[in-house]
Amino acid sequence: MKNYKMVLQYEGTRYGGWQKQGNTDNTIQGRVEQVLGRMIGGPVTIHGSGRTDAGVHAEGQVANFIVDRSLKPEEITEYVNRYLPDDIRVLNTEEVPLQFHSRLNAKGKKYIYRIETGAKKDVFVRRLQYGLGRELDVEAMRQAAAFLCGTHDFKSFCGNKKMKKSTVRTIERISIYQDKTLVVLNIAGDGFLQQMIRIIAGTLIEVGLGTRSPDSLTDLLAVKDRQMAGYTAPAGGLCLAAVFYE
Amino acid sequence: MKNYKMVLQYEGTRYGGWQKQGNTDNTIQGRVEQVLGRMIGGPVTIHGSGRTDAGVHAEGQVANFIVDRSLKPEEITEYVNRYLPDDIRVLNTEEVPLQFHSRLNAKGKKYIYRIETGAKKDVFVRRLQYGLGRELDVEAMRQAAAFLCGTHDFKSFCGNKKMKKSTVRTIERISIYQDKTLVVLNIAGDGFLQQMIRIIAGTLIEVGLGTRSPDSLTDLLAVKDRQMAGYTAPAGGLCLAAVFYE
Repeated sequence: MKNYKMVLQYEGTRYGGWQKQGNTDNTIQGRVEQVLGRMIGGPVTIHGSGRTDAGVHAEGQVANFIVDRSLKPEEITEYVNRYLPDDIRVLNTEEVPLQFHSRLNAKGKKYIYRIETGAKKDVFVRRLQYGLGRELDVEAMRQAAAFLCGTHDFKSFCGNKKMKKSTVRTIERISIYQDKTLVVLNIAGDGFLQQMIRIIAGTLIEVGLGTRSPDSLTDLLAVKDRQMAGYTAPAGGLCLAAVFYE
Repeated sequence: MKNYKMVLQYEGTRYGGWQKQGNTDNTIQGRVEQVLGRMIGGPVTIHGSGRTDAGVHAEGQVANFIVDRSLKPEEITEYVNRYLPDDIRVLNTEEVPLQFHSRLNAKGKKYIYRIETGAKKDVFVRRLQYGLGRELDVEAMRQAAAFLCGTHDFKSFCGNKKMKKSTVRTIERISIYQDKTLVVLNIAGDGFLQQMIRIIAGTLIEVGLGTRSPDSLTDLLAVKDRQMAGYTAPAGGLCLAAVFYE
């Protein structure tokens, strides 16, 4: 038995997200499993560090899979890249201890959310941006973001209404930078709830547009009600940048 | 009568190049003229600084058009961007003297050619790169490129067999840089023949692969025979970066 860890990059535009869904194979997981299964000559299950929603991208998704024979990591990378479509790429494969699990062992993640505030998106990176088309007060957004940093109950920012488990998470850092008309949010934390980054992005955008005050974020955390937070910003602006392990 | 100068960006992947061809409107020029004509309420012709081939991209194509009434440049930009597809964008529109012509007045151009030497292209910029998938000796390519700089007869690098006019051009600079597995050619000159950059790229790639010596470029220029040069590198790796005027 061998355990392999894989780092993947994908443009999520035409996929139904990371996680395999029933019989459809229009997911990243489904596509990778299909190619890996062909290489190995039998079914294989890959475990992602977490689901990414339909349309969300990744620069550094991590997944692992256990197979009953020894393969050269470089040969896995080469084979899988050759047969995967051109919007999914394996960056690296390595052998890891059998007990490694990409989701259970993840210590943190970093996400990037890109917002174009100008009238039209840059044609070359349009699939990676949310085209807001309105100016944002980035300083107000930074003030609001500061209230979210630290350990809080993020129930107001959870897209799963039936969430039974703890909604307490730690956000280590939210940095927001502006390059001409592009506003980029960088968010790092120990883990994120369903659609949490997109709801944070939507809420911070409302602050940037002036329809919500930075101070109101304290109340928003306290109320623990998804209805009180901002809208869920579109999937296309979101990218899973990296997953961290010990 | 007013003359307007427009700077455009486009991802050429799904277009039949810049120049309008008969009845098809699947060209950049055709698309822009269609939208502009709707704004103005009558036919309009836009003059590009030069044709880009099918599949070639632009970060700074320049075009001008003359209309019989006065329009606010910002309103032209806004209107055209609103109705153009998301892979064509107007970066700027300004009024210029009536005698300005984007092609006839162009003093120089800069092109970028991107080559991925690794096994698979970066998923996010895959449409802007040529996926060579083989290592290149960049130092040898630089040596070869040096022979092309200056004023020469570039007949060996001209894709138009029936070219009647002068094939003498001046290349001001070819710089080649490498970032991990990506090799990028930057070529600036006073003007370029049909497919000239792509034939230069193909020839330099052959040097980089070791199938052609850097020194042989001198003979290649002297022989004035397209058959002796390298292959025409694919359109998708090429981008018109900028057009220069006095």
